[in-house]
Amino acid sequence: MAAMATDPVRLADLVGRLGGEILGGNVVVSRVATLQNAAPGDIAFVSQLRYRNLIASTRATALILPQSLREATSLPRIICDDPYLYFAEVSRLFSPPEPAVPGIHPSAVVEKGAVVAATAEIGALAYVGRGARIGDGTAIGQGCFIGDHAVVGARGRLHANVTVYHHCTVGNDVIMHSGAVVGADGFGMAPKDGKWLKIPQTGRVIIGNDVEIGANTTIDRGALDDTIIEDGVKLDNQIQIGHNVRIGAHSALAGCVGVAGSAHIGRHCTVGGGAVILGHLELADHVHVSAATLITKSIAKPGTYTGAYPFSEHKQWSRSASTLRHLEDLARQIKDLASPSTTPKIARKTRKSAPVKRAKAASPRKKG
Amino acid sequence: MAAMATDPVRLADLVGRLGGEILGGNVVVSRVATLQNAAPGDIAFVSQLRYRNLIASTRATALILPQSLREATSLPRIICDDPYLYFAEVSRLFSPPEPAVPGIHPSAVVEKGAVVAATAEIGALAYVGRGARIGDGTAIGQGCFIGDHAVVGARGRLHANVTVYHHCTVGNDVIMHSGAVVGADGFGMAPKDGKWLKIPQTGRVIIGNDVEIGANTTIDRGALDDTIIEDGVKLDNQIQIGHNVRIGAHSALAGCVGVAGSAHIGRHCTVGGGAVILGHLELADHVHVSAATLITKSIAKPGTYTGAYPFSEHKQWSRSASTLRHLEDLARQIKDLASPSTTPKIARKTRKSAPVKRAKAASPRKKG
Amino acid sequence: MAAMATDPVRLADLVGRLGGEILGGNVVVSRVATLQNAAPGDIAFVSQLRYRNLIASTRATALILPQSLREATSLPRIICDDPYLYFAEVSRLFSPPEPAVPGIHPSAVVEKGAVVAATAEIGALAYVGRGARIGDGTAIGQGCFIGDHAVVGARGRLHANVTVYHHCTVGNDVIMHSGAVVGADGFGMAPKDGKWLKIPQTGRVIIGNDVEIGANTTIDRGALDDTIIEDGVKLDNQIQIGHNVRIGAHSALAGCVGVAGSAHIGRHCTVGGGAVILGHLELADHVHVSAATLITKSIAKPGTYTGAYPFSEHKQWSRSASTLRHLEDLARQIKDLASPSTTPKIARKTRKSAPVKRAKAASPRKKG
Repeated sequence: MAAMATDPVRLADLVGRLGGEILGGNVVVSRVATLQNAAPGDIAFVSQLRYRNLIASTRATALILPQSLREATSLPRIICDDPYLYFAEVSRLFSPPEPAVPGIHPSAVVEKGAVVAATAEIGALAYVGRGARIGDGTAIGQGCFIGDHAVVGARGRLHANVTVYHHCTVGNDVIMHSGAVVGADGFGMAPKDGKWLKIPQTGRVIIGNDVEIGANTTIDRGALDDTIIEDGVKLDNQIQIGHNVRIGAHSALAGCVGVAGSAHIGRHCTVGGGAVILGHLELADHVHVSAATLITKSIAKPGTYTGAYPFSEHKQWSRSASTLRHLEDLARQIKDLASPSTTPKIARKTRKSAPVKRAKAASPRKKG
Repeated sequence: MAAMATDPVRLADLVGRLGGEILGGNVVVSRVATLQNAAPGDIAFVSQLRYRNLIASTRATALILPQSLREATSLPRIICDDPYLYFAEVSRLFSPPEPAVPGIHPSAVVEKGAVVAATAEIGALAYVGRGARIGDGTAIGQGCFIGDHAVVGARGRLHANVTVYHHCTVGNDVIMHSGAVVGADGFGMAPKDGKWLKIPQTGRVIIGNDVEIGANTTIDRGALDDTIIEDGVKLDNQIQIGHNVRIGAHSALAGCVGVAGSAHIGRHCTVGGGAVILGHLELADHVHVSAATLITKSIAKPGTYTGAYPFSEHKQWSRSASTLRHLEDLARQIKDLASPSTTPKIARKTRKSAPVKRAKAASPRKKG
Repeated sequence: MAAMATDPVRLADLVGRLGGEILGGNVVVSRVATLQNAAPGDIAFVSQLRYRNLIASTRATALILPQSLREATSLPRIICDDPYLYFAEVSRLFSPPEPAVPGIHPSAVVEKGAVVAATAEIGALAYVGRGARIGDGTAIGQGCFIGDHAVVGARGRLHANVTVYHHCTVGNDVIMHSGAVVGADGFGMAPKDGKWLKIPQTGRVIIGNDVEIGANTTIDRGALDDTIIEDGVKLDNQIQIGHNVRIGAHSALAGCVGVAGSAHIGRHCTVGGGAVILGHLELADHVHVSAATLITKSIAKPGTYTGAYPFSEHKQWSRSASTLRHLEDLARQIKDLASPSTTPKIARKTRKSAPVKRAKAASPRKKG
């Protein structure tokens, strides 16, 4: 239990701000919690019917419930249309973002010509380059690097050890987590006589307002034009965004996604964890890519797209994978079967496929 | 050759500490090495029969061998049950972990109210926040960030540039490598009017004893409850652990694995490199997930699970992948063939599938 | 538009240095740009015929074109064999790498016994360990960590917040981007009584000349022998290289690739984004691995290898994936059909496979 208790509020206070209907008593709550781990004084929520059986055993003082569960308990409760969103709003009331503590830590290095707002915070051991600008109420965490002429807007929070390269621009209300790197060179090289000739990456990264960037996520600067992350985009941890990518407003990408150079993702898209989007593709607005899916061509139609091999017990996988390598043969055999004159040939052609052997999966054990 | 020679020991000293049987002479060795690169004075090991042919040409002074190879050479040798483990133990004797050098480097920033053990080391340019606690004999590397009220136990080593967010707790004997980030916000948002509303992440990360965390691995703090890494867990590099995940004791995850929010992995599990575990799943103890496998549902039974598409030459892949898109048709055609009356229909239904075309794979070359 | 204008040059100056033929006028240009975003004074290029339709609308002052497009415009232009390479060379003329600014920033920590060339730059808040050596003209960025006895050659640039562990060696003309970690421990453990015993990683990382390493890429030190990155290798962002890997000269790996321990990749190879190479494999020279492909065995023959499941609309995927699990059955049924006596059995054996259900893809939404 880590959430810290804040000033208690009555359910009526919540309903006054956020709407909804109170049933079972206008009690006082001081923290949000999960059904399973709630303690007295907590308010918990149920957004999905499959969790309704946990209601009976919760120790929560009050609940946030959908209309369909309004009579599922006699506990004090708020009935609303979208309990998950309601829970989010209540959480934000109880745990508002910490404001910046204005000032520049004496151990920080701020170069001449940098413009740091009086209300901004520059943490210990952070670096702000020449000509960089830090906006009102923004907190630059300990150990961050803000390159020359980079701009971070107002009310942002860069947690410790974030890197923003020179000339990149970050909008207002942006959160960046530790280890994020904005503006490293894109992977641009031309082959020359069997070697690779580096192409200078002279574009920038332009990040809009209300964007969140996860820990160790990397966003490369453009080669000539800019890489663009539009307003409201949410990037989870360890995402790689190549040069000249554009991500449309309010799209959300889960952890470990890779987006190759010059891909354009539309607005209101979602991309599941570990998916890879190849370069120079266009994804329309409202496209949803499932986890671990490789997108190899542009998608013009909104919808959900999937492409991961289903897992199974290893033995079963081995048999299927073996046959898979000769799928084309199977298809031909069926065609032949359908036209009787060729039947005799088929029997001869049937190839016996050995189970797929694979090297030992990457394991923690080094062989010797 | 990088391993540094330490004080030489006799084979009898090793056998005295670690067991095993000496054959061929009680020689002195001063370093462990691989069979191929050993020099005089080194001890090498063979754990797998397939490497036995390298024995004849090794320059090692002594060998660690399994019973099955006891007569494979006349070199001085130690015979034991598990040469790989024996090698590990000998390596540890020759290269014990470097102890912390007690003291706080003058360039480090330690906030008021932080409690740093007298035997702990705080490296140059490191930061330790208010109320944080650093245990006996623990080394906090150069440039590390330890957030407010975070706790690191005894005998730990955080290499340079590790980030531990506020209120997270790390047990004893924990090793963390550079770029690791513990406690960044989980990826929790509620959709509201086509935008994403951030949900405060108020849980913590709780890390047990004897855990190792690889370079650039990220472990998110819980949304309300905590994210938990149990004792003895080993995480390789660039792993992403979502909020509210639990990883059971003595499980080992290879590089680039992603574990989505609220997934629970059992004890003594292994996960191969690049695998993805979706959220809200339960994996039993002793489950082994192969490399690059996507786990989409809970696994209740111990065993090995696999789900990666087998690779082949591109042309062959192209044909199989094309047919794969219409696998359902193939299955139907077979069914139809098996009941003769429908045969004529099939021939007509057979669809000619064009080879799958794919956009150029993410390549270092930017097109213009 | 981010690229900064530099001293203008005439097309004849370019042709004098780089070859090619001028048509349409020897104009002055001062910047390279893309066709779409060029402004007057810019030179743009077309390397692929499919972009020829953009020529009519470009505002560029001059173009770089292949022979096949020599008459595609009346604009001033340079005709050459490889416009992409030509563009790269011109870009390098306009944007040469920034030289190091000799000197050690007063906030940097350089330990006794470190040898920093007089022409090298040590950025603010950087750390250089005992016995480390920094070569002529090399810039060590702000917040970098160079461990004890590590060596960085001449003319290198380590951007901010790079980590190089002790005893690792980096050649000349090497670029490393922020968050890169060189020399963390490999993932080496021996199982002992249900726990994992750490094996000391006493090898090094040896990086050749003219190598580029992307942001947040990690390269582990060897267990006993060294991990080796040969000359001219280019690594994109977020790549994981396990211990004792060898990557041959002039190979290029795209973002998010994982290479497991002791894999050897040949020279002049390319690996697409998100691919995974399992451990202890050998890839020949000139092997090309497509994006998101899992390589499970050694490859002795140059060529292109692919192994990703093709994506489709989710419903279609669901049907194919379901059938896939029973592919072996399908193959058997075809075989049975081909030998008429067994036909009756088949009909009975045909199994109805339910569509594959999958847990909700890793999504930004936490359920409650």
